[in-house]
Amino acid sequence: MTHRIAVIPGDGIGNEVMPEGLRALEAAAKRFGIDLSLQPFDFACCDYYRQHGQMMPDDWFEQLKDFDAIFYGAVGWPDTVPDHISLWGSLLQFRRRFDQYVNLRPCKLLPGIKSPLADRRPGDIDFYVVRENTEGEYSSVGGKMFEGTEREVVIQETVMTRTGVDRVLKYAFDLAQSRPRRKLTSATKSNGIAITMPWWDERVQAMAGHYPEVSVDKFHIDILTANFVMHPDWFDVVVASNLFGDILSDLGPACTGTIGVAPSANINPEGTFPSLFEPVHGSAPDIAGKGIANPIGQIWSAAMMLEHLGHKEAGDAIVTAFEAVLEASDEAVLTPDIGGTGSTESLGRAIAERI
Amino acid sequence: MTHRIAVIPGDGIGNEVMPEGLRALEAAAKRFGIDLSLQPFDFACCDYYRQHGQMMPDDWFEQLKDFDAIFYGAVGWPDTVPDHISLWGSLLQFRRRFDQYVNLRPCKLLPGIKSPLADRRPGDIDFYVVRENTEGEYSSVGGKMFEGTEREVVIQETVMTRTGVDRVLKYAFDLAQSRPRRKLTSATKSNGIAITMPWWDERVQAMAGHYPEVSVDKFHIDILTANFVMHPDWFDVVVASNLFGDILSDLGPACTGTIGVAPSANINPEGTFPSLFEPVHGSAPDIAGKGIANPIGQIWSAAMMLEHLGHKEAGDAIVTAFEAVLEASDEAVLTPDIGGTGSTESLGRAIAERI
Ligand SMILES: CC(C)[C@H](C(=O)O)[C@@H](O)C(=O)O
Ligand SMILES: CC(C)[C@H](C(=O)O)[C@@H](O)C(=O)O
Repeated sequence: MTHRIAVIPGDGIGNEVMPEGLRALEAAAKRFGIDLSLQPFDFACCDYYRQHGQMMPDDWFEQLKDFDAIFYGAVGWPDTVPDHISLWGSLLQFRRRFDQYVNLRPCKLLPGIKSPLADRRPGDIDFYVVRENTEGEYSSVGGKMFEGTEREVVIQETVMTRTGVDRVLKYAFDLAQSRPRRKLTSATKSNGIAITMPWWDERVQAMAGHYPEVSVDKFHIDILTANFVMHPDWFDVVVASNLFGDILSDLGPACTGTIGVAPSANINPEGTFPSLFEPVHGSAPDIAGKGIANPIGQIWSAAMMLEHLGHKEAGDAIVTAFEAVLEASDEAVLTPDIGGTGSTESLGRAIAERI
Repeated sequence: MTHRIAVIPGDGIGNEVMPEGLRALEAAAKRFGIDLSLQPFDFACCDYYRQHGQMMPDDWFEQLKDFDAIFYGAVGWPDTVPDHISLWGSLLQFRRRFDQYVNLRPCKLLPGIKSPLADRRPGDIDFYVVRENTEGEYSSVGGKMFEGTEREVVIQETVMTRTGVDRVLKYAFDLAQSRPRRKLTSATKSNGIAITMPWWDERVQAMAGHYPEVSVDKFHIDILTANFVMHPDWFDVVVASNLFGDILSDLGPACTGTIGVAPSANINPEGTFPSLFEPVHGSAPDIAGKGIANPIGQIWSAAMMLEHLGHKEAGDAIVTAFEAVLEASDEAVLTPDIGGTGSTESLGRAIAERI
């Protein structure tokens, strides 16, 4: 059986980390005898948008829908296209149209990576953020009135559905159930956001009824971000709306020092459409072109993709490999962000060799 | 001239820290010859709500509107009243009806208080969060459709106005202009929240035109929370919408270890209505009744109130006093949260004596 994978490097450092992601992917495929067919797509700000005035061709959905997965770098180049246009014209479309309603992001303290938090060691922090990925605060419903005048009013609607919320809660509860600590934390703001959030709390409580073995707590998003810094060891699985999950899944990796290294999976659990795997970091125009971007986010995303495709062993082998390279902490190999003098390629090669 | 101050201790530890806030306030008033008239109000979940089925009497606005300031503890007691009812029935009403459109919160590393961040010293972190405090994501506009069925849809609207956004931006730019670093950071999410946030960015840019001396940058809220942890020294004045400001003004104090200690000012800059001063912490049911709550948030709020009333010297004297007590770090005086064995009262008394 061949897995068909669409490869979209995107913009900026997306183009630099993708070759290393592929190097690791191919090394793992070779070792475990996995058959991959990779097809590249140039959907990005530079140069696709520049040439066509849009991020993707009109038939993108048809072109991509039968792939088994999408391996994605990073999109965005604000000098060419404003971010809300480039993202709503690509990544956010995929999440919605391919119904990738779970965004899964690990927050894990890794060997050899310095955390900005005092006195934390590998093992202390190891949790997942499960983010709703298709609705909620990321809506395009709303508009302006009295535009351009002193009376201007701008409205944006948050839209949540029972179907949308329940299915991501179910995924999060299942994940919590499968982990040794069996703990689920819900991100809310029901004291201030008076319509959607008290209702979110009710849905969590209803779902909790089906999982008597999972212990459940909730925090308002303000104090929850504070607790990520003060007590990151409290968390096992954190479930959150689209916006809150976006925030928590940057903050979590920041607390573990892995913001340049964290992966994410945009999952359509039913497999009706391809799932998408991408690093948490963006296209990073400030360091693009220098060859110093850390490729581990892309490589770790490859591991999540292999696991999703049914090759958990191969995924684990990738994680073991980059953990070993980090632990060895050879300055000449590591990228500058983690204290080395090496390049995207030197780090990528070292990891691929270990695999 | 007498300053008339309404005193609302509220619930839980609000009742424990308020006496210490008043002790410091009165000590400073005595030393600097300030004439205060204090009037207590029992608006709270326990027992006002229990007795009357609402958080405040119908004529609360009339009763309070002519005070010069409101000195506020913390409201909320979820066992009696759900948070969204207690808060929308008190604090959030004050902010709106008294048009306290600026919520100002300092984030400052203090002597003697351990930060959860590695390698940070007093002086390294010293910035303000300026939060819009009357509109935005905290709206009660919206509702449910197909309620209670599988098709349920829940909608909540974010409402921003040009008047509302411009005036808080102006306050933040003025503040940045008055500080040595003259730096302003805007919290946005214009890549994902596609209507309100790109417009927020435009308003920031328009206001920046009037402040050529202020250097301006912006970050999306996800990476901004990450940067609070990774680079808290980057910030001077951070301006944000209601929700983003709520998050950042808990996260900032968490990064400085001062979450139990941070104050806030809800300001009506024109002085048409009373401004309100409260600690950032809530009513903390888990430690209420034990006499161990840290009173510095309430005391520091008293300092902000005095400054607002035109007595900057008196406010500074309070800050100097609690910094000195913290620096002395006498275990028997400090509360448990900052490594002591003392009580709310012992710490409050020590600070009042210094004043
Ligand atoms: C209690 C709650 C409604 C409030 C808010 O969200 O504004 C609090 O978190 C704050 O920051 O003052
Ligand atoms: C680029 C942006 C639209 C996106 C998001 O907010 O979802 C990113 O921050 C992410 O977390 O994947």
